[in-house]
Amino acid sequence: MNIYDVSKKAGVSIATVSRVLNGKPNVSAKAKDKVLQAIKDLDYTPNIFARGLGLNTMKTIGIMCSDSSDTYLANAIYYIEQELRKNGYDSILCCTGRDIDTKRKYLDLLISKRVDGIILVGSQFVFNDPSDDYGYITEAAKELPIVLVNGAIENDNIYSVLCDDHKAVYDITSTLLENGHKKIVYLYNSTSFSGMKKLNGFQDALQAYGITPQPEYMHFCSKDITCALQTLQDMDAVGLPFDAVVASDDLLAVGAIKYAHSKQLLVPEQLEIVGYNNSVLSKCTEPELTSIDSQVEQLSLAAVDTLMKVLCGDYVTHTSTISATIIKRNTTKF
Amino acid sequence: MNIYDVSKKAGVSIATVSRVLNGKPNVSAKAKDKVLQAIKDLDYTPNIFARGLGLNTMKTIGIMCSDSSDTYLANAIYYIEQELRKNGYDSILCCTGRDIDTKRKYLDLLISKRVDGIILVGSQFVFNDPSDDYGYITEAAKELPIVLVNGAIENDNIYSVLCDDHKAVYDITSTLLENGHKKIVYLYNSTSFSGMKKLNGFQDALQAYGITPQPEYMHFCSKDITCALQTLQDMDAVGLPFDAVVASDDLLAVGAIKYAHSKQLLVPEQLEIVGYNNSVLSKCTEPELTSIDSQVEQLSLAAVDTLMKVLCGDYVTHTSTISATIIKRNTTKF
Repeated sequence: MNIYDVSKKAGVSIATVSRVLNGKPNVSAKAKDKVLQAIKDLDYTPNIFARGLGLNTMKTIGIMCSDSSDTYLANAIYYIEQELRKNGYDSILCCTGRDIDTKRKYLDLLISKRVDGIILVGSQFVFNDPSDDYGYITEAAKELPIVLVNGAIENDNIYSVLCDDHKAVYDITSTLLENGHKKIVYLYNSTSFSGMKKLNGFQDALQAYGITPQPEYMHFCSKDITCALQTLQDMDAVGLPFDAVVASDDLLAVGAIKYAHSKQLLVPEQLEIVGYNNSVLSKCTEPELTSIDSQVEQLSLAAVDTLMKVLCGDYVTHTSTISATIIKRNTTKF
Repeated sequence: MNIYDVSKKAGVSIATVSRVLNGKPNVSAKAKDKVLQAIKDLDYTPNIFARGLGLNTMKTIGIMCSDSSDTYLANAIYYIEQELRKNGYDSILCCTGRDIDTKRKYLDLLISKRVDGIILVGSQFVFNDPSDDYGYITEAAKELPIVLVNGAIENDNIYSVLCDDHKAVYDITSTLLENGHKKIVYLYNSTSFSGMKKLNGFQDALQAYGITPQPEYMHFCSKDITCALQTLQDMDAVGLPFDAVVASDDLLAVGAIKYAHSKQLLVPEQLEIVGYNNSVLSKCTEPELTSIDSQVEQLSLAAVDTLMKVLCGDYVTHTSTISATIIKRNTTKF
């Protein structure tokens, strides 16, 4: 028996049930009656939302991420943790790795530890793959609210905060095309929800400028510097010319800078390079790396804000989108 | 009532009590009698160690660190988490920040969540400062075993895995002195247990070569690139010459490389630079950074190994020390 059953029985959304349980306004008398009748019929004890009222709460939020050693995810966790603490909530972090069984197990673990809600950080929880099984997440959402950072699932009790990755890559690619580049390489290291949005942004920008995306200019590299360096050297070896590199992650862009050094190419005069995430790495390279700032701090604060509102039964949009910004350093001419 | 009381009453170590409770060999008949008598006298239910026997265990280890966005700590957490999972244990991570009240609160939280043991990652939990109050850690050690990574507290139920930071900095400084350097700058960003060992290693090496350490050559910088760059520019501005920089963290060494670029100094020909932690940053700079590898993976595995042995009642040394290695890249001549 859970909030999901009440919502189904009453024929209203989970948010409406939550608002009724928390005595919030903006619920029609009719909807309220339906909810109260459903609660009565089901003999439901609203323990989940009672948590939010401080009646039965651990005041603890579960955080899950695939890999805490990833710079981007580590920063997101840091901001989320700080912000939760400001709101009087403790955090439990579980690093799941990429294996789905482990993800499922940790989600169950967090629920069994009676956390009030869960934030899934990073796009490694939802893939744009038809075989992707995120049923365990929707199942968990019957028990408690879930917020995805850089992921989206259509569900009444799942909320998303997203960076507009498509637009960010679309815009930077357009800028490069406008500046006369014709042969732009795209390097990426993930086919996750957000990884695919970035790749599509690149392809859509090319098409908007009448260029058909060529597979030999879009390369999947594992998340390391050497792979990006090798990929560009291989392109060079087979005589594929290029004059700009857009990377889905700063690490790959570092590999592109190393490629330029190895060929004694001037950056940005002979090769323009753009990274993604605006991580500390972008300040370590020579020249310093122009990078897209995916606003990890703002995204993290929005995730906590969303969850706090849900726990209070306040009205909240299911999806919040934040725009990335471009941080211009010295690997681009614009 | 806890294992500490039993140990005190019986007049034997906690390890001995643990071995008796777990039916391990290597306990004298006399010690065993004392323990059993104390348990009887105190009417003690050995619930803590029963956990280790799978009787009453959550099979969960608490991990605490001060800042999950720190590259070094993030890697340690990653390895610890993976290794615990291999041993059938789940992990709960709490990021405490540097405030002692928050550290205390999170330690209490973990104990209340009935974890089987706690690993404190990073040297931000123990300082070589007389005003340092780590009483909350020794208090917690009465409830469950604690392992410190890069920290040490003398206590029967607290274990340490350490990197030999003193020797690492002593050795690299000696090498630089042998190679003819006379004016070496030391940059550091922490006065923690391990931070002080590094600083002392630098000072001791100078003294071994008959050089008195000068305060104007040892600078505390906050943990960022700009601070290190500014510090070296300030030294230059007041006419303090230097020909090598040893840094307690790769980020500070990145600042030193930027200083060299800003003055158009050749690295390593005119300025040799050594970082610490062998982080991903050391592969992003131009030239790539020579860095001391503090063996975060080995330390992490040793921490988990120690805790697993303690939970089984196996004999384990209280302090394990692992040697750092120097990873030679292109900012040094040797």
